[in-house]
Amino acid sequence: MLPEEIKKFIEVFEKLPSIGPRQATRLAFKMVGGGVAQLEETARAILGLKKIKNCPRCFFIYSGQSLTCERCSDVNRVKDVFMIVEKETDLITIERTRKYNGMYLVLGELTKSGNLEIHQKLRIGLLKKIIEELPDKRAKEIIIALNPTTYGDLNASIIERDLKDYSQKISRLGRGIPTGGEIEFADEDTLSHSLQRRE
Amino acid sequence: MLPEEIKKFIEVFEKLPSIGPRQATRLAFKMVGGGVAQLEETARAILGLKKIKNCPRCFFIYSGQSLTCERCSDVNRVKDVFMIVEKETDLITIERTRKYNGMYLVLGELTKSGNLEIHQKLRIGLLKKIIEELPDKRAKEIIIALNPTTYGDLNASIIERDLKDYSQKISRLGRGIPTGGEIEFADEDTLSHSLQRRE
Repeated sequence: MLPEEIKKFIEVFEKLPSIGPRQATRLAFKMVGGGVAQLEETARAILGLKKIKNCPRCFFIYSGQSLTCERCSDVNRVKDVFMIVEKETDLITIERTRKYNGMYLVLGELTKSGNLEIHQKLRIGLLKKIIEELPDKRAKEIIIALNPTTYGDLNASIIERDLKDYSQKISRLGRGIPTGGEIEFADEDTLSHSLQRRE
Repeated sequence: MLPEEIKKFIEVFEKLPSIGPRQATRLAFKMVGGGVAQLEETARAILGLKKIKNCPRCFFIYSGQSLTCERCSDVNRVKDVFMIVEKETDLITIERTRKYNGMYLVLGELTKSGNLEIHQKLRIGLLKKIIEELPDKRAKEIIIALNPTTYGDLNASIIERDLKDYSQKISRLGRGIPTGGEIEFADEDTLSHSLQRRE
């Protein structure tokens, strides 16, 4: 009973992350209601993404004519400290703190298998090459900023073992009670960490 | 730090229903990761919606060359029973039950003000005209299928008063315990309704 165009829209949109069939249907009606100009603007916004590339060093996205992203080509950033993050959005969140001024490697979303995918292994391999080209042929520090979850921990220890000869120091983000969190509701593991790493 | 194209995408998508800035950002990265072919398919799916029109009788959406939607032009449907729904998705849900074979009027989303918007009043006006063109100049039944919420109830009683001379009978959907629901957790109002309307 739905027109073909709406069905096609739902088919395409229901596959996108956290949009199911229901939300795709609602979106379709909303977009139809928005009129032709809004439909064209939305389509243009999507086609604009064709200009986006992945940085060949850190794999974060960028656009424009330069060979690498703005962070990788920024002479004011520390070149021998690396942070390995899972997702682009993790990098954005870290950058917002303005507390980190080193290089990055975006690994891509971890699978639940506990093993790195081939493209993720290739990215780690590239990081090794970048480190070997440093004056000291060694990084000062590699921060493995994966989520403190079972899979994050598992992958972090695999990566740590793999990179131990490539850096003076390998670290992870400190665990503890989040700002605004309550001791009463903190789990044992978090509380142990926050006791051991008192500030 | 985000490329202009990504910012533009987020700006456009964060305004859509139940997509906030966070989900728009995640969507942008997912779509970039999907590659050029997927971007083009998605843009095409959106532009396809330009062909969608609103039926001038019931205001549900349709495409194609006919003057009204398939339900309004279906000779096998009952022409003197009308159901007033709020949203297109409500109509779809009702149609899925295959228990209703009359006409519809899609009112459009109700505001929290408790008053009908001008375009909603115009749609009710159009329904009156359609009813006046019936052989009896009166509907057999008008079912006001608005949500059983405070605003739904308020609007339903406004509409009922407005249409009382246009139909032999004006009804609303029956209230009761939903299938799979538990008596223990039913509120008093629902339970009173389900007692009064025993099946």
